[in-house]
Amino acid sequence: MPQTRIALDAMGGDDAPGAILGGALRAVSAGMDAARILLVGDAGRIESFLGEHGGNPGFEILPASQVIEMGDSPAQALRAKPDASIAVAVRAIREGQAGSLVSMGNTGACVGASTLGLGTLQGVRRPGIAVTLELTGKPLTLLDMGANIAPKPDHLVQYAAMGSVYSRECLEVAAPRVGLLNVGEEAGKGTQLLKEAYPLLEASGLEFVGNVEGSDLFHEACDVVVTDGFTGNVVLKLLEHFAGFMLGMMLRELDSHQALGWGREALGHIRRSIDYSTYGGALLLGVNGVVVIGHGRSDESAVANALELAARALDTEVNRFIERGLATG
Amino acid sequence: MPQTRIALDAMGGDDAPGAILGGALRAVSAGMDAARILLVGDAGRIESFLGEHGGNPGFEILPASQVIEMGDSPAQALRAKPDASIAVAVRAIREGQAGSLVSMGNTGACVGASTLGLGTLQGVRRPGIAVTLELTGKPLTLLDMGANIAPKPDHLVQYAAMGSVYSRECLEVAAPRVGLLNVGEEAGKGTQLLKEAYPLLEASGLEFVGNVEGSDLFHEACDVVVTDGFTGNVVLKLLEHFAGFMLGMMLRELDSHQALGWGREALGHIRRSIDYSTYGGALLLGVNGVVVIGHGRSDESAVANALELAARALDTEVNRFIERGLATG
Repeated sequence: MPQTRIALDAMGGDDAPGAILGGALRAVSAGMDAARILLVGDAGRIESFLGEHGGNPGFEILPASQVIEMGDSPAQALRAKPDASIAVAVRAIREGQAGSLVSMGNTGACVGASTLGLGTLQGVRRPGIAVTLELTGKPLTLLDMGANIAPKPDHLVQYAAMGSVYSRECLEVAAPRVGLLNVGEEAGKGTQLLKEAYPLLEASGLEFVGNVEGSDLFHEACDVVVTDGFTGNVVLKLLEHFAGFMLGMMLRELDSHQALGWGREALGHIRRSIDYSTYGGALLLGVNGVVVIGHGRSDESAVANALELAARALDTEVNRFIERGLATG
Repeated sequence: MPQTRIALDAMGGDDAPGAILGGALRAVSAGMDAARILLVGDAGRIESFLGEHGGNPGFEILPASQVIEMGDSPAQALRAKPDASIAVAVRAIREGQAGSLVSMGNTGACVGASTLGLGTLQGVRRPGIAVTLELTGKPLTLLDMGANIAPKPDHLVQYAAMGSVYSRECLEVAAPRVGLLNVGEEAGKGTQLLKEAYPLLEASGLEFVGNVEGSDLFHEACDVVVTDGFTGNVVLKLLEHFAGFMLGMMLRELDSHQALGWGREALGHIRRSIDYSTYGGALLLGVNGVVVIGHGRSDESAVANALELAARALDTEVNRFIERGLATG
């Protein structure tokens, strides 16, 4: 079943290939069939790592001789490195060897290669990056987190539709409520983009709850938050770094009270609830394939979560539901 | 010296007039001359409160018979309530009875009344809301936080200039470095607005350090962060509520380890560093007067801080420096 295989970019990420391959092994330990994972990258390094870690449990390896580094300019790197692991992984999907791609590498390169190489799903105008957080214990999906920094009103409506389908099919939220991120609750608020998107969302047939503000993320006011890719990207980076900053302050306070022992553990609970890699990473919704993009700093556990997310998105056939949803919407 | 007096909106805010008048008394205890404060609002309630709290130490009272509530639509309320405390306070500045206004009331009404009633400083195209945080121990000023949700590139340059003057004159930052909030560091990043603002900022003569991202707020990459009012407002609300949310999670963790006693105190330190009322509130930069707008939920301490900020802005003649800066810039 090549369509349900996952091409894993073994070379992308700060700790690649070690953390990536370790994550693949961890996913297999947790029950995933090794034959489902197609490792893409430097075959020699991959085999040598696996040899040192108990042998290859059954992964297929697809060689790729180049690597796009985290700091590379995406467009330039994709042109200059046609045999980069991320490009080879995208080709594997296009050629039917896999249905999904997981990468912890250069986000821009991953979005670019996937969008150009896979094309969009039937009816989708622009792909969007969806991220799921579990701030309150219930999954909250935000999109777009940066694929499309200057969207049109109808792009936002499509993000709402795709986010709703994803939330329902993959996160088991029964009737996902959609909010539009804005600076006030009233219908006439915000930029021209939002003023135009609001009535379209009202007429969309989705469970649109209206405008939401930053405060609404923390009390389950909705299940899907739609925003433009600029605001989404700023917000996501700010939240991540602010969380790390606050946890750091907290650790210093705990340290001064000799409470570091249990403090680190307690803060670990908090960190997980605000880290989107708990849900496996960001999903590029709208492309013709399942594309999961993780943090460059992903560890084995994050990689295993990303593989789980890709498998879930493949198994639930979320893309088929998205096409159906957009056709009827 | 009526020009250095501060008109305090006694009726604006969730706990008005109690918290507001308590804040005025606290400012006087801390050394401010009571004659400097002009209380605007319901004279009967003000006198009765002061009578119950040791008497009037020398405040003048300017009666206003109406109040704009927190939930009122700003434009409608300003039309319907011409004798609202916020409107009367703005008139007091226009008529030379005061040089500054401090309000914890309806932000939109305060921005609207001030902008229309006071006009802009010489050379200023659009006022902007500046907020100062002290995340790392050094003041970081962000603007615009919501006065102008769809600015032009030259508005952003003016925000950079006004923020720099404010940072230097009122916050004692020697040579304030300006960053442009964006989704990446490279010059060509971001929306059309930011692409156009970037070269203007480079040519402005300000200490422009280029684009900054959310992560840069936490390691002193710059002293002034410029953004459009939409992004600024979303970011500010998100940070505030996220901080409260995380502090709540931390308290629950501390509670489960029977460490609430010192925990609350430790978290208080963190809360202060992320609360902009530590710096007295938001300053509406660019209007012809000193306008300080606080949280609706401001307590006595926040009100006293806001009065201190207004006094500092008046005493340093920040508006004269802004006009001079824009004339030479």
